Amino acid sequence: MKIVFKGKSDHLYLQIAETFQKQILDEVLKIGDKLPSVRLLSKEHAISVSTILQAYYHLEAKGLVESRPQSGYYVSFNPSRFPRKIEKSDPIQVVKNKNVEAIIGEVYDDLAMDGVVKFSLSVPSPEILPLARLNKAMIQSLRDLPANGTSYEKIQGNEELRRQVARWSMHWGGHLQADDLVTTAGCMNAVSYCLQAITKPGDTIAVESPVYFGVLRFAQSIGLKILELPTDPDTGVDPDDLRNALEQHDIKACFFVTNFSNPTGYCMPDEQKEAIVKLLSKHGVPLIEDDLYGDVYFGNKRPRSCKSFDEEGNVLWCSSISKTLAPGYRVGWVAPGKYIDKIKSLKLYHCITSATAQQAALGSFLATGRYEQHLRKLRQTLHTNSLQFTRAIGEYFPEEIKLSTPKGGFILWLELAEHIDTYQLYQEAMQQKISFAPGTMFTLQDRYQNCMRLSYGMPWSAEVEQALKKLGGLVKKMNGSMA
Amino acid sequence: MKIVFKGKSDHLYLQIAETFQKQILDEVLKIGDKLPSVRLLSKEHAISVSTILQAYYHLEAKGLVESRPQSGYYVSFNPSRFPRKIEKSDPIQVVKNKNVEAIIGEVYDDLAMDGVVKFSLSVPSPEILPLARLNKAMIQSLRDLPANGTSYEKIQGNEELRRQVARWSMHWGGHLQADDLVTTAGCMNAVSYCLQAITKPGDTIAVESPVYFGVLRFAQSIGLKILELPTDPDTGVDPDDLRNALEQHDIKACFFVTNFSNPTGYCMPDEQKEAIVKLLSKHGVPLIEDDLYGDVYFGNKRPRSCKSFDEEGNVLWCSSISKTLAPGYRVGWVAPGKYIDKIKSLKLYHCITSATAQQAALGSFLATGRYEQHLRKLRQTLHTNSLQFTRAIGEYFPEEIKLSTPKGGFILWLELAEHIDTYQLYQEAMQQKISFAPGTMFTLQDRYQNCMRLSYGMPWSAEVEQALKKLGGLVKKMNGSMA
Repeated sequence: MKIVFKGKSDHLYLQIAETFQKQILDEVLKIGDKLPSVRLLSKEHAISVSTILQAYYHLEAKGLVESRPQSGYYVSFNPSRFPRKIEKSDPIQVVKNKNVEAIIGEVYDDLAMDGVVKFSLSVPSPEILPLARLNKAMIQSLRDLPANGTSYEKIQGNEELRRQVARWSMHWGGHLQADDLVTTAGCMNAVSYCLQAITKPGDTIAVESPVYFGVLRFAQSIGLKILELPTDPDTGVDPDDLRNALEQHDIKACFFVTNFSNPTGYCMPDEQKEAIVKLLSKHGVPLIEDDLYGDVYFGNKRPRSCKSFDEEGNVLWCSSISKTLAPGYRVGWVAPGKYIDKIKSLKLYHCITSATAQQAALGSFLATGRYEQHLRKLRQTLHTNSLQFTRAIGEYFPEEIKLSTPKGGFILWLELAEHIDTYQLYQEAMQQKISFAPGTMFTLQDRYQNCMRLSYGMPWSAEVEQALKKLGGLVKKMNGSMA
Repeated sequence: MKIVFKGKSDHLYLQIAETFQKQILDEVLKIGDKLPSVRLLSKEHAISVSTILQAYYHLEAKGLVESRPQSGYYVSFNPSRFPRKIEKSDPIQVVKNKNVEAIIGEVYDDLAMDGVVKFSLSVPSPEILPLARLNKAMIQSLRDLPANGTSYEKIQGNEELRRQVARWSMHWGGHLQADDLVTTAGCMNAVSYCLQAITKPGDTIAVESPVYFGVLRFAQSIGLKILELPTDPDTGVDPDDLRNALEQHDIKACFFVTNFSNPTGYCMPDEQKEAIVKLLSKHGVPLIEDDLYGDVYFGNKRPRSCKSFDEEGNVLWCSSISKTLAPGYRVGWVAPGKYIDKIKSLKLYHCITSATAQQAALGSFLATGRYEQHLRKLRQTLHTNSLQFTRAIGEYFPEEIKLSTPKGGFILWLELAEHIDTYQLYQEAMQQKISFAPGTMFTLQDRYQNCMRLSYGMPWSAEVEQALKKLGGLVKKMNGSMA
């Protein structure tokens, strides 16, 4: 047997692992199949035993294979066929009467509790962040800044940080300049300015569905009407569906999380992004693009953003480092295209400026190669986590559940049996100190009560596996009690 | 001659200085009068020569007396009668058509220029801040915080900081608990949440006039109508005027900077505060109280706040450390009374949380006696500055100008001859690298074009004196050119 190792990675062991991974996903190797013996493979390909072992360990960490003592490595799991996939959403535009605001408050408050396994928190846990290096950058910036960072930053934000974000934009097909950007207190803060800049109370905006609850709540708080669009769990909003919506409704703005969306994890294909940008441009409707998760891709390159197809300044591209470096720094940014003056005014009137020291620290952090180095590690960890979570959910949850298959990001979206109310499940899970985000948070409609969002942004561990097992047990019990 | 020294300060030299200061203000000692000789005073009162000298130096630093070689100390200046005082404003509710937004943008942008004497910036300059101690607190908090401050803070904000702000509230007659407070990204951010929590687009709010431009701009940006009330430059809005306004208009909220207001510097007397709180409570109209400058008083004790008279949770008390410690930290707070849940939701939807490290650093800074110690020094510096500025303005500006007489805070409000446009003056002053805030920024009406705000939050120096001299010269020239 001769295999051609053609993974796209630099390292040989990764090339080997990727080749086997593809065979597993394509079901060339089926669950239960034995992988070639290490010794044999080493001999045939003139590759050292330790490199082959490294490749197998890597597949084992991802939960794809298991080693059986005195026997070898066997395929144990294939994420591509198990469990069932979620279908495209079909929002019904019927408003529910649940007090979702109270549910969101409860979920957030519970985050402060000690000893809770926080599947509800869609940020990386500190264990997988470069804390020491970030802290060094912070202390250095406090030392270097005029008046130790006690003075106001420019309204538009720290110049070095903006320069670095602009430099980084080439990774997603962008060609930003520092002056195209305004810094904000995180990505949600950027989105909030965008919505205020381009809408007025009573206007209608169109969003994907399910959609990040923060945007729904914010839009409601400023008096907007919200149209939830059908959304494919792999590719997001279809241009045809959007065209229909634009023809039937007076839509003033769109909001999409185009890469590894929260909560479904879809990643919009590049051609679709281009089509959406052209369509919206034709209708004169601005797009707020939340590209918060774009850097955390599991494939070989970063997906592009809608902004990269924007020729008219019609896309307001928002992002931050809250999902990759330091949520508590509260640093984000927006490239608001032709709305930049409005965004600067809004920032001035709301907050004057954002915190000085963190912006400077991130500016210098991004200027080195450290961010890239950290991201490489983070992607690996999260990819492995996503596979481990998927495997464990397949193992511990009822068979008929459906599950998203994200190609990046932090989160899984689960659809349980129709009769299950995940808010009730949440309350039972919290008794066992397990939190997650109930599906009802992600819509204003009477939907997704049987869905839930799980974050896998923490290191994989026996404790996490136990928590998933308990959670699966609770779901099975609820399944049974209604059967 | 036997004088009874009865100043209220701890130090004997300050008691002596305060006694003479009172005599100067009361015109018992007139400009040109000689103070008792140091030797004589020392002998009569059995006080050391050095203590008497310290008292005279103190008066000299305040610009009240001058030493004449081989002769002694003479009264050189009496701020209580010179120059003329500003009259109560009488807003006319006629909207102007100047592009004030552009003017504000221009003034802010010019702040970034090097080598400009920034009379426009109403924050303390770094030279009078405890930079080293603050920085130490920052570095310590980065070290002590879980995950070095990279994690989200609680939505309500750092607990120790809230506890310290609550403890500090006894200084202004408050009795807050940590749980009564929500932290924000500075005071303007707190005010912005308050306005959003209690109004909806189309509502009318009542404000003092002239009023801090940030509030005007923010209120406009969320679609509010603004009623500018007559405002006394010493005592603020009169309860009778407010009653009339409440009867004639459907006012949904009031906004007042009750202590050392920006820009007129008025401080509302305690009885008046109580009357306003009762009146608003009777009408069910909430009060947003901006108490940003309250800690920077020149008298013997901190003025109370309206919040201290609030029994129904009807006052939303906002403040920050941007005017006393570190504007660039972007830390403020609000005690929103019965609106606390709404404020917490708004903060969550706009920004999720505020920056973690600065909150913790300030919590520990306020827990020691350092804040009190710093404030004592800051008040002294600013009081001296206010007197020096007043003296210099009296010396270099045309005689007929009118000037505020603040009892605290950072700023002077000048009224020039009616025909002078201070925006035109601003442009001429910037040619000489001097900035200030033109009066037109502080109203939505066709008013205050001949007014200007000067900040004295920088160390007094020959350069500052020169800048005031140049500015006075420009005003004199404009006076003359139209005469």
